Amino acid sequence: MALIVQKYGGTSVGTVEKIENVADKLIAAREAGHDVVVVVSAMSGETNRLIDLAQQVSDHPHPREYDVLVSTGEQVTIALLSMTLNKKGYPAVSYTGAQVHILTDSAHTKARILDIDESNMREDLEAGRIVVVAGFQGRDEHGNITTLGRGGSDTTAVALAAALKADECHIYTDVDGVYTTDPRVVPTARRLDQITFEEMLEMSSLGSKVLQIRAVEFAGKYNVRLRVLSSFEEGPGTLITFEEDNMENPVISGIAFNRDEAKLTVLGVPDEPGVAHRILGPIGEANIEVDMIIQNVAADATTDFTFTVHRNDYDKALAVLKKTAGELGAREVNGDDGIVKISLVGVGMRSHAGIASTMFETLAKEGINIRMISTSEIKVSVVVDEKYLELGVRALHDAFNLEQAPAA
Amino acid sequence: MALIVQKYGGTSVGTVEKIENVADKLIAAREAGHDVVVVVSAMSGETNRLIDLAQQVSDHPHPREYDVLVSTGEQVTIALLSMTLNKKGYPAVSYTGAQVHILTDSAHTKARILDIDESNMREDLEAGRIVVVAGFQGRDEHGNITTLGRGGSDTTAVALAAALKADECHIYTDVDGVYTTDPRVVPTARRLDQITFEEMLEMSSLGSKVLQIRAVEFAGKYNVRLRVLSSFEEGPGTLITFEEDNMENPVISGIAFNRDEAKLTVLGVPDEPGVAHRILGPIGEANIEVDMIIQNVAADATTDFTFTVHRNDYDKALAVLKKTAGELGAREVNGDDGIVKISLVGVGMRSHAGIASTMFETLAKEGINIRMISTSEIKVSVVVDEKYLELGVRALHDAFNLEQAPAA
Repeated sequence: MALIVQKYGGTSVGTVEKIENVADKLIAAREAGHDVVVVVSAMSGETNRLIDLAQQVSDHPHPREYDVLVSTGEQVTIALLSMTLNKKGYPAVSYTGAQVHILTDSAHTKARILDIDESNMREDLEAGRIVVVAGFQGRDEHGNITTLGRGGSDTTAVALAAALKADECHIYTDVDGVYTTDPRVVPTARRLDQITFEEMLEMSSLGSKVLQIRAVEFAGKYNVRLRVLSSFEEGPGTLITFEEDNMENPVISGIAFNRDEAKLTVLGVPDEPGVAHRILGPIGEANIEVDMIIQNVAADATTDFTFTVHRNDYDKALAVLKKTAGELGAREVNGDDGIVKISLVGVGMRSHAGIASTMFETLAKEGINIRMISTSEIKVSVVVDEKYLELGVRALHDAFNLEQAPAA
Repeated sequence: MALIVQKYGGTSVGTVEKIENVADKLIAAREAGHDVVVVVSAMSGETNRLIDLAQQVSDHPHPREYDVLVSTGEQVTIALLSMTLNKKGYPAVSYTGAQVHILTDSAHTKARILDIDESNMREDLEAGRIVVVAGFQGRDEHGNITTLGRGGSDTTAVALAAALKADECHIYTDVDGVYTTDPRVVPTARRLDQITFEEMLEMSSLGSKVLQIRAVEFAGKYNVRLRVLSSFEEGPGTLITFEEDNMENPVISGIAFNRDEAKLTVLGVPDEPGVAHRILGPIGEANIEVDMIIQNVAADATTDFTFTVHRNDYDKALAVLKKTAGELGAREVNGDDGIVKISLVGVGMRSHAGIASTMFETLAKEGINIRMISTSEIKVSVVVDEKYLELGVRALHDAFNLEQAPAA
């Protein structure tokens, strides 16, 4: 008898029939003797319908009210799923984020979970009930409804698993695991049986989109055993492991990419201490997340500073940066929202030299010009023009033989 | 400077454009110097969409989860209205029933308001904010979401007005006031400038549908000054008054009717003390509201007992009654869900004899057979076959000259 937290995304609960399927999976877990907590997203299309309503009101809807609006999507799903379970004779009880005391900060539309009071859920589980929780939402200390941002249901599931000390957290999606890269781009992409937390972190943040980055961070931090599975087919999925569990790592686990990048550059900033903070501080205050950051000192004691943001934040970031650049006496601000990022990810990279140079060579052979480079211990990322995305990913997948499973 | 609670129903907030109109009305009230609390229903069609989802899951959806589901309808509206006000530069804050501490009992889908903590709203009003509250919903002592049943948004508005000691409570609807009867049935029906609480209570409960009965009860109990107005046209509407304010009442104020009645009879019940309670107790426990009750003693020391319920509750009530009848040793149970009720209402009736006989005579002239009669101080109700509804109402409207305003 284990305690399992399961999470189903929007496509898995997109109709009443699909919700019935989810109920059957939960019942199977109950019948196998497990305690079950399930986190669900809004029915597919519902969040977009709500966002569309908000956009009809305003291009910049009030963030607090935006959260009140979009959080109804998950509330509909928890009610329907809990009704379905009760109808089938399995006691279930639904909770909104606020009801189950998912306490967050007050950063509306992008809130972070601070604490969870799991006592109600424990009582329900002890009474034999399936606990159905709305993903993606919580409440702040003043009782305002908050949302965690898109994909936040994964984070809810992992946070609940951590709070409840669950044995496993199963993230059900429309894919059957984590692949070496997106199979829509590279048909020979292969499902990984396991992947390390660190790799998964790099894969999600770089756009493989299977799991939300904060969910993976959370899982790593609280030692939550996380598995990605398909809602629609049986299969073991991909287990997210700690590196220590798995000494024989392949050099490269996968290739992540992100289509939605934009880059901003401020040229000729006086090269003084604190400049990076003065440039990025206002960006952070505007709640814009920065991805890659590169700084080069120029010959004239000024510095050039480049960073990337999500393409949706490009206009806002550019406006903030122009203001800051004026204050700093910078020479020029420019940007490009037609770029993408491609990254090689693998914990095995640490002990293997030459990965980066093989990568650059492969891209050069295809005539792909590299606009930015950034490296970490377990990844190498390049920024290229968006037209080269598919070509670059396929060439790298071939070059590193990712279609073949590594020798055991 | 007054404190006004306004309430807008589903058709008044049915689209983003209509919500914009509501926002403009609220802003006009703010600009006139008033403090404003507004209660809104779900956008028209939304509650039905949600109920349809529940019905896809089950014919008898779990009541707790049903409330979780349908309460999202109002939550969408409060968010959109509050966004719209903020966009127009008028600070506004939205609250669900739970957030504004509308404490109810736990009778899901038909909960009753027990208490409201108005302190948050007061703070907001003092800070100059428009307070936007979701109608129709609250929370019970355990934090479960409850709903007040259809039309409950009126009750929310009046309860908030009572808690806040508001100067007036304005119920905006798609009609411009209370009429002598339904103008769709009688084209010469006339809008009343005012009507007493008692009359309004009889008019609503009998089906004039402008205001929910519990809202009127609440208003009477807590001395809330209530006005019914149109969302779409300017006009004074109808003021609901205390009788004392208005000594010169017409004999008959209006004719109410209810299409959705069903009658149930149990024949040959032993005529003993406590029989009425033993028959109606289980009906009440099943959360079925009973309207008319008639009991006659038969010659053989048994009694016949008849009552009416809402047509939706007919099957459920019949099942309960059959069980009770068996336990009581009653001879027979029968029922009819093809009946309607027509009522004359007027506080002036108290001082005028002969109203009932004029009513019966008018119906007899039209060949309408009366199936049940029930009277109170300010109304006379008859139950007739549903096919006679329009004919009966028109004949009575003519007979009592209701198309003419009474002399001042």
